[in-house]
Amino acid sequence: MEANDVNRSEIQEQIKVQGEIVRKLKTEKADKDKISEEVAKLLELKAKLGDDSQKTKFVLKCPKGTRDYNPQQMAIREGVFNTIIKCFKRHGAETIDTPVFELKETLTGKYGEDSKLIYDLKDQGGELLSLRYDLTVPFARYLAMNKITNVKRYHIAKVYRRDNPAMTRGRFREFYQCDFDIAGQYDAMIPDAECVKLVSEILNQLDLGDYVIKINHRKVLDGMFAACGVPDDKFRGACSAVDKLDKTFWEDVRAEMIQEKGIDPVAADRIGKYVELKGRTELIDKLLEDEAMKSQKSAVEGLEDLRVLFKYLELYGITDKVVFDLSLARGLDYYTGVIYEAILQGFAHTPKAGEEGDESVSVGSVAGGGRYDGLVGMFDAKGRKVPCVGVSIGVERVFAIMESRALASNVKTRTTETEVYVVSAQKNLVEERMKICKELWDADIKTEQSYKRNPKALDQFQYCETNCIPLAIIIGGSEIEKKVVTLRIVGNREERTVPREKMVEEIKSVLANLN
Amino acid sequence: MEANDVNRSEIQEQIKVQGEIVRKLKTEKADKDKISEEVAKLLELKAKLGDDSQKTKFVLKCPKGTRDYNPQQMAIREGVFNTIIKCFKRHGAETIDTPVFELKETLTGKYGEDSKLIYDLKDQGGELLSLRYDLTVPFARYLAMNKITNVKRYHIAKVYRRDNPAMTRGRFREFYQCDFDIAGQYDAMIPDAECVKLVSEILNQLDLGDYVIKINHRKVLDGMFAACGVPDDKFRGACSAVDKLDKTFWEDVRAEMIQEKGIDPVAADRIGKYVELKGRTELIDKLLEDEAMKSQKSAVEGLEDLRVLFKYLELYGITDKVVFDLSLARGLDYYTGVIYEAILQGFAHTPKAGEEGDESVSVGSVAGGGRYDGLVGMFDAKGRKVPCVGVSIGVERVFAIMESRALASNVKTRTTETEVYVVSAQKNLVEERMKICKELWDADIKTEQSYKRNPKALDQFQYCETNCIPLAIIIGGSEIEKKVVTLRIVGNREERTVPREKMVEEIKSVLANLN
Repeated sequence: MEANDVNRSEIQEQIKVQGEIVRKLKTEKADKDKISEEVAKLLELKAKLGDDSQKTKFVLKCPKGTRDYNPQQMAIREGVFNTIIKCFKRHGAETIDTPVFELKETLTGKYGEDSKLIYDLKDQGGELLSLRYDLTVPFARYLAMNKITNVKRYHIAKVYRRDNPAMTRGRFREFYQCDFDIAGQYDAMIPDAECVKLVSEILNQLDLGDYVIKINHRKVLDGMFAACGVPDDKFRGACSAVDKLDKTFWEDVRAEMIQEKGIDPVAADRIGKYVELKGRTELIDKLLEDEAMKSQKSAVEGLEDLRVLFKYLELYGITDKVVFDLSLARGLDYYTGVIYEAILQGFAHTPKAGEEGDESVSVGSVAGGGRYDGLVGMFDAKGRKVPCVGVSIGVERVFAIMESRALASNVKTRTTETEVYVVSAQKNLVEERMKICKELWDADIKTEQSYKRNPKALDQFQYCETNCIPLAIIIGGSEIEKKVVTLRIVGNREERTVPREKMVEEIKSVLANLN
Repeated sequence: MEANDVNRSEIQEQIKVQGEIVRKLKTEKADKDKISEEVAKLLELKAKLGDDSQKTKFVLKCPKGTRDYNPQQMAIREGVFNTIIKCFKRHGAETIDTPVFELKETLTGKYGEDSKLIYDLKDQGGELLSLRYDLTVPFARYLAMNKITNVKRYHIAKVYRRDNPAMTRGRFREFYQCDFDIAGQYDAMIPDAECVKLVSEILNQLDLGDYVIKINHRKVLDGMFAACGVPDDKFRGACSAVDKLDKTFWEDVRAEMIQEKGIDPVAADRIGKYVELKGRTELIDKLLEDEAMKSQKSAVEGLEDLRVLFKYLELYGITDKVVFDLSLARGLDYYTGVIYEAILQGFAHTPKAGEEGDESVSVGSVAGGGRYDGLVGMFDAKGRKVPCVGVSIGVERVFAIMESRALASNVKTRTTETEVYVVSAQKNLVEERMKICKELWDADIKTEQSYKRNPKALDQFQYCETNCIPLAIIIGGSEIEKKVVTLRIVGNREERTVPREKMVEEIKSVLANLN
């Protein structure tokens, strides 16, 4: 330790000397290459210090797959959330929140192959914890823990997946989910239909262009797999292979089924025929006539559900937005009934060099969900079930679309709501400005001033224009003497003199007129 | 492994058989004791399976020190946030967000002794990550990373500390912070005074009763330690000991200084005299005359700052809310100038049996902050400084107060905003209800209906009353025949018949009148 310390202080001395050399060269405006050479030596010395020399060591970044939101992005985010929350509330939902991490065992066995993407916390003594992977499992845990048998709730919060990020397309490791779920023992397809209707309302109101909501049913899928000759224990594997059909070609899915999931090639080829099918009620009817399918109890039950669902969706006036699609599988293990996924049309991502070809053509999935009747029971000591159905809005992709629109439109988004800027036209008026600010704040008027004692008039007016502040209150010696202020409308530079004691009243009336 | 598997499958077989026995007894409605006996055997068998038998093993809880928010708590939380955000916006702040975790090294060396409370993520390959401990260090990282030299922003988000939770008093391991900070090279005390003014506005508007804002200055503390004979390298240790004065007695702080921090007993006793001092400008003047203090450059600089600050706070009209208190130290390492902390008066926690005596008498600290001019520079390769000052509102304690008030007041908080409930007075009207719901949703009226095909009329009306839904639309055979609906005002049970095509219009006008 001591030898090391002596060594360190020697290096620190050398750094000082080398620092002086660099500073001197810079002051003399010496040759750039010469300066770079000496700076390099300096950095080398600093690097030798290792740990303590933080300034050269820091990697200044967000963790992989995460990002900061700047004020413009926050303004967009708030707008999107407000639209979505309005839709949730229109359907009578309450809201809850749960911790960002759960006991590790709460998440175990819920996500199938995706479990490898869960973030674990370090074992620092005490409980083993993991970051939440979605909002559905914490919701089920909440219901079971509080013995709640029916509720309609929304939950907007960040979830975490150690996936390969594709941030330009809105795929992050930390991302928001906006979930709406209906829990309770109800009659078939009534809550399910409402979830689909809600998705269409949200997508309409976010104004994202045309979309289609793909619908399928886990029981139809299970029946289909059985009809094709897949043994029961390989249903989930087959399902997760089919799930990749929106991102890749059938040939790849077929190969995965056969090579990784151990499914018979004949069965795989039969599956290949079914997953091509898309339609509406006529397809339901056709499948109910299909020899292989109609002998499967599960398939028939699922198809009967879908028949009711499509009837309800017709009453809800969204038949043109939905399609029964046998290739829709959804990755997660916990679904037991109807599943759906909303895809934005005409929002095909523009492929860029260096991206994987097959992924870049995938159209944008912006919402998905389904029925999961067994999940709450997994948390109940007696296995008591609480049937649930819900939907999750993939808002990150929505943010990405809104951001690129905002960029393209070139319209400045205000990130503050300041109404008045208090300007001093002369020196030594900071205390007068403070008195005015106090009065305005206490009257609930959004007010700012310069944080400099003697700011330049030009800088102050510039600040108003840059930040789209509508009004300025200007004071100078003569205003103070006459007990007045000058009120300027920043937009047209119109000015008027207002008695000091009428200032608040006048500002409020001008603001009301401007709005 | 194989023996184990064989053993497992044997047990699983036994479980099947035993399960059959239980089911049979239940179907036969056998004697309850007999059933319990067989169920117990079944559970015993399941327990033998260990890991795979999740249903008996699950611990249903939130991680230690965390909690769920139920809909009532969420309503309170939203109210508190809205009040605080309104104050932030009144002062012209923008908002940002950062990831919940940071690179571990971003947090290293910022929190002094408290670093042990940081949650680390497990090393799963890739970067080493930690959950954010506060919002200040991520803010500084954000400024340095984006080379932002001035901004006024607020940030409301959860932070994480592996501390001993005291949840009844609003102390959690996962908790919200509401931060407001002003970054930029400005003139002395102008942003600092605004932060203190802002705290007073927030506390006034949250209506939490009387409070006092304690103020001190790190330079005054450093000067005081030097004046008492503490060597430079023990300032931070002395500071963190003094910080505990709001929770414990001087004797304990003195002992910690001497035994743990290696401070000379004579120096500790001198510190003991100073930290008793409280006052306003007269105390500032007195200390500027104090022989030991006035010889310390740092102390004089700090006191001069405080003199200016108290002048500004007088202009802001909050002199009666602030006190210069030499015992205020604030735990965190990064403060460099003015520090402050708001304490609720008359909100002394009622001590309960089993709690530590000294902690239970601590009054409620609900906001704190200060100036940290060096933190951003720690992230800059060239050490470029961005002076900052800010405040953090401890909203968890505010939530706790609001929740206990809500409980005491016995007033029901609505957790949904539903305006209309669609009731069927007869069987087989689910499709008619759906048509009406669609119409109301599409007209942006917040509407619910029963998720049962044929709900009982009484249950439907009960739902309206329980959930304070103001209006019901009632349909039966005769309404459908006559193309009308019955509109009921739930509060007074007044009913009127409305033509079907006037329904939306009529509802909107009734709702407007009710509000």
